[in-house]
Order: sequence, then structure tokens, then C-alpha cells
Amino acid sequence: MADQVVLLDFWPSPFGMRVRIALAEKGVKYEYKNEDLWNKSPLLLQSNPVHKKIPVLIHNEKSVSESVIVLQYIDEVWNDKAPLLPSDPYLKSQAKFWADFVDKKIYDLGKKTWTTKGEEQEAAQKEFIECIKLLEVELGDKPFFGGETIGFVDVTLVPFYSWFTVYEKLGNFSIEPECPKFIAWAKRCLERESVSKSLPDQDKVCDFVVEMRKKLGME
Amino acid sequence: MADQVVLLDFWPSPFGMRVRIALAEKGVKYEYKNEDLWNKSPLLLQSNPVHKKIPVLIHNEKSVSESVIVLQYIDEVWNDKAPLLPSDPYLKSQAKFWADFVDKKIYDLGKKTWTTKGEEQEAAQKEFIECIKLLEVELGDKPFFGGETIGFVDVTLVPFYSWFTVYEKLGNFSIEPECPKFIAWAKRCLERESVSKSLPDQDKVCDFVVEMRKKLGME
Repeated sequence: MADQVVLLDFWPSPFGMRVRIALAEKGVKYEYKNEDLWNKSPLLLQSNPVHKKIPVLIHNEKSVSESVIVLQYIDEVWNDKAPLLPSDPYLKSQAKFWADFVDKKIYDLGKKTWTTKGEEQEAAQKEFIECIKLLEVELGDKPFFGGETIGFVDVTLVPFYSWFTVYEKLGNFSIEPECPKFIAWAKRCLERESVSKSLPDQDKVCDFVVEMRKKLGME
Repeated sequence: MADQVVLLDFWPSPFGMRVRIALAEKGVKYEYKNEDLWNKSPLLLQSNPVHKKIPVLIHNEKSVSESVIVLQYIDEVWNDKAPLLPSDPYLKSQAKFWADFVDKKIYDLGKKTWTTKGEEQEAAQKEFIECIKLLEVELGDKPFFGGETIGFVDVTLVPFYSWFTVYEKLGNFSIEPECPKFIAWAKRCLERESVSKSLPDQDKVCDFVVEMRKKLGME
């Protein structure tokens, strides 16, 4: 019997994008279901009853959630091509460390760059740039964090690039001139179809956010 | 050449306790270094330059940090006995999901039960109990989350039991009567030497916290 794979997602979600990239890298066919997060489907509530969050991967009726855990699941189940994690335990731990850094730092700080004000915002923007520069050091001279091709850290990190217009325009600050190496890396990732087809256009994400803020009376 | 294993730790840290239990389960001999977190050693700053936090496992001069990542590293390197994670990808993803739940919920809420006041404290204490009850449901009729013996979720979760006196005494609320099944599970874990030797006495942790608050003028 062929595998039944369903992805519960929300198109501007960087966490959802991670799973899309991983499935594309592995060549897995799946049914895409875009959730309305203001009116979650019974399927979402039932398949992730604890957090009630996307993304959820439903594979032959078994649900896996939390994007970094989903990526590891995908990498183990479809292990015949495009390995995301290295097999060496130490290198694997380092890839997980940087993916965890992305979750702990880049996500939170990225959000704060445009949703906070005054000193808090300034501090967040400064720390955001510092974190990106730290990632540039970790990248070093390699084309990708995964080495010659994209790997676990690349897949975890590159989705946030689709939010850079939101951060820059709504946060009224500038990232790109500060981190040319990071930008070059993101563009290199986007040359891969698995990435370009999984990431929405930066302006589209920004329009969505502006629209959402209007709706919520947050302007 | 024999493995050189060093653990940078701080004795009341639940995250450090996780690593101690895992190393004990695997029968790995190691050098224990208790850090002064108010005067961190050059070795800690050098081996975890990003977060500067314990625990750090230094294995043959290579450093691994972030406790959940360290546990996975230990499980892969010393894979000849006491497996922590199941080998089935789905079961593995579920164990990682609950370990992540412990990190996201039990740690934060546990801290809030005694460090906040008023409505915020009440809400945290209520949610903390709810989360423990959710874990009781997940445990079901099994003796351990890992099944017949302790596994990844048990190792991740049981260290917080050594903080229960802090939560109850300093937070002035009661956990034990609400969650008899959880307490029975924790006591079952403590029957294992790997756990009992890795967890400090609850009163000792509480005395330490009271002393620290006095020092910091937080009474």
C-alpha cells in the first residue's frame, strides 16, 4: 500500500515551510491542507490535541508534530535519499544544536523586531543581527550549513528569510546590508526547487501581515 | 584509548540531572565538575560559547550542550545498553514530543509556581497541575513512560521531582494529593540507582533556593 501523507499547515508559517522543504527534498508526495488558524479544523484539534498547532504531519494516520521533530521523523522514514542530518553522532548533535538556536533565538527575536517598540525593539533588532552574524560564522566557507548541499540547519533556518521584508519594513530597520554572507546563503538555498517552491514571496508574507494587523485593529 | 568524559554541571540543575541519569544508565565513567554559575569557569565559557550554560558534556575534547541533545548523543554513542529512545521512528518522535513538552511546559510553569505572585501565580499553579495530569494520561498503565523500564521521557522529566518541595513550600500550594499517579511514577524512578544517585534530596534543593533568595535580597 502506498504511503498516505497529509500535511496540516498554514502557508506563511516558517515552521510549516520547514516540513514542505524536507518532503520536497525527499520527493514525498502529500496532500496539503491549509488551516484557518482562527477556525481550526477538527482534524488539527484531533491530531495535535496538546498544542493544537500546525504543522502536523499525518503519515498513514499517525500524527507527528513540532517541526524539528517532524524533520527528524521524515529523515528517518524516507532515508533512501537527501539525508538531512549527518550520521556521525557528534556532527548530528551540532546540527541539532544550531536548529535549536534558530528556534530559541531567530524566531523570538525576529518577532520582536517588528511587534515591540522603543528600547525593547532596539535591543531585539541589535540581538537579531548579532545572532545572524553568529550563524554566518558557523556557516564559514561552506555553501550550506549542511556542507555541499542543504541539511538540517538550512531547512530549519531558511524559512525565516521569507519574513525578512516583514522584519525590515514593519520594524523599520535594515538587515540585508549587515549580513551579506547570510543573504548570499539564503539566495543559494532558494536556487533549489525544494526551497523556492516551499517559501512564499517575501512581499506576499508582508501583505498578509499588514492585512492581518488591519483586521485586528493593530495599526 | 579509553573515552575521556567530563560533565560540566551544577548540582541543583534538572537539566544536569538528566545527563547524570543517562550516563549512569549507560554505565559511563566521567569526571564531574560542579560549576559556580556566578563565576563560570573558562572551560564552560569555551565549551559552550553561545549559551554559556550547563550542562555540557565533553567527550574526547568535543563538547555537546543542551540537555535533550546531550541525551540523544549519549544514546547514540553508548548504544550497547539501556536504550533511551525506541528505534521505531514514530515511537521515537512521540518520546521527543513529550520531552519537548516537559521543556516547554513543566520547566517554565514550575518556575512560575513560586517566583510569581497573585493571579499570574494562581494561573501557573493551575496549569502546572493540568500538565502533570496530561502526563499521567500519557503514562497510562505503564510503569514508565519508556514502558517496562525508564526511557527518554522519564529521564527528561523525573529531575523536576527534586524541585517539588520548592514549588510546594515556596509557592504555597499542593501538588502531591492532586497527582498520586505521577508521584507513584517518580518514586518508582527513584528506586533505580541511576536516578536516586543523580537527584539531590528535595529538602536540600529547597534549602539552597531559600539561601540563594536571602543572598539576592529576594525574601
